[in-house]
Amino acid sequence: MTTVGQKKALSDWFTSLQKRICTALEEIEQEYQGGDTLPGQFHFKPWIREENGGGGTMGMMHGAVFEKAGVNVSTVYGEFSPEFRSHIPGAAQDPRFWASGLSLVIHPMNPFVPAVHMNTRHIVTTRSWFGGGSDLTPTFEFEADTKDFHKAFEEACDKHDIDDYKRFKLWCDEYFFLPHRGEARGVGGIFYDNLDTSDFDHDFEFTRNVGEAFLKIYPELVRRRMNMPWSDEDKQKQYVKRGRYVEFNLLYDRGTLFGLKTGGNIEAVLMSLPPMVSWR
Amino acid sequence: MTTVGQKKALSDWFTSLQKRICTALEEIEQEYQGGDTLPGQFHFKPWIREENGGGGTMGMMHGAVFEKAGVNVSTVYGEFSPEFRSHIPGAAQDPRFWASGLSLVIHPMNPFVPAVHMNTRHIVTTRSWFGGGSDLTPTFEFEADTKDFHKAFEEACDKHDIDDYKRFKLWCDEYFFLPHRGEARGVGGIFYDNLDTSDFDHDFEFTRNVGEAFLKIYPELVRRRMNMPWSDEDKQKQYVKRGRYVEFNLLYDRGTLFGLKTGGNIEAVLMSLPPMVSWR
Repeated sequence: MTTVGQKKALSDWFTSLQKRICTALEEIEQEYQGGDTLPGQFHFKPWIREENGGGGTMGMMHGAVFEKAGVNVSTVYGEFSPEFRSHIPGAAQDPRFWASGLSLVIHPMNPFVPAVHMNTRHIVTTRSWFGGGSDLTPTFEFEADTKDFHKAFEEACDKHDIDDYKRFKLWCDEYFFLPHRGEARGVGGIFYDNLDTSDFDHDFEFTRNVGEAFLKIYPELVRRRMNMPWSDEDKQKQYVKRGRYVEFNLLYDRGTLFGLKTGGNIEAVLMSLPPMVSWR
Repeated sequence: MTTVGQKKALSDWFTSLQKRICTALEEIEQEYQGGDTLPGQFHFKPWIREENGGGGTMGMMHGAVFEKAGVNVSTVYGEFSPEFRSHIPGAAQDPRFWASGLSLVIHPMNPFVPAVHMNTRHIVTTRSWFGGGSDLTPTFEFEADTKDFHKAFEEACDKHDIDDYKRFKLWCDEYFFLPHRGEARGVGGIFYDNLDTSDFDHDFEFTRNVGEAFLKIYPELVRRRMNMPWSDEDKQKQYVKRGRYVEFNLLYDRGTLFGLKTGGNIEAVLMSLPPMVSWR
């Protein structure tokens, strides 16, 4: 079972990763020459869970490159309600849990810069496991970007003999899919859950590599596209594409529905929703 | 049981009501002097159900007063899938159904004009019943408007000894509520389902009165407010309020979830979603 020391190492890692990601995104804001406004900066808002234990810090930026970027970390603990126990591995025997993780969703201003989601987490009940993933949602797809995004996560998987890249990639395609439209949310990435090779250090290292892969590839993709000029029509297409993102998150995303039904912090749970959206 | 002649009378009524509502909204577009664009006109798009029988006509307008107005009629029939039979009155014994109805959602341009929803329908399984309602969603509430909206539907109820106005009003408040925010969607109206007094003519007349009440009160409320000047800040508040509308429809609205899960016409099912929305 996850020790107190391991729990501390996990929550420290998520907090340090949050800082590094926020700094990397702020650097892009500083570099960018095309904005009418000052470069964006993250604002950090701590929150606590009123009914159970723990809390988190929501980092939020509204900038010139990043129309809305939310990077949230949380470490929470308590008891699952009876209705949830049967759905959570290891919770039927004992409802107590501990969970720590980082979750981010970025909606860029420029329609040629892809939106992105990344999440890594560790959950402890009578069992313990890692979960997470990252997926890219371009409004206008560039094949090279898609390829490089996938490659970054393939390397993260291959580094540590998790070697389930193909499975994690397929899982992502299956998960981020809108059946009512017969459409994928984006171009995929990786998705995994219930990861427990019984070697904590190994699984934690893989988790860190997923974070590092994100930090390596996403800022690069932003820099490639952030200076491309766009038209009102391009922006309108981005608004419509974002509508699909909303449909997915409110109709299907397990994390969102779980958060809403368990009385999570609403602002943090719905941080993923885009700043401007259109359904025509 | 509903006869062939009654079914024809129902679908004729919904179709004629659609025309009258669309005409009433187009007249307001013609009257309005404040737009930079030509007055809006409805475009009508027929659709058929591919896997089962029937279809409908979706009326859609993007105008100067009405940023997005969708008025849909449909008459569909077929068989409920096994998973739905137990949830639908009278369908467990025999899965065949027939349903006809009108559904509209209007998102005005001016943030001081309230958004509105109205729906009336008749469903036939081994039983038959009416359902429907209407609710008002202002971004900025005017007490007089709320009062007059409620009064119009109270009169529709009182005219015909349905006399369940209080119950229908409470039902509306309970139904159009976002538990995750602890917020009502708007200021309410009426909501009813499984209405069957065993007097078809009586119940059908009540249904027509609900339609007439809408036609009487909503255009009047629009005319009261459509010339009020608004600021960017007011418009931003409207965008945020519309976000709550999206959250309600995708997380809770039974009609929307039913339509998505039973392979309804996606465009018609999601017609309710607003043209521009913001989550900050």
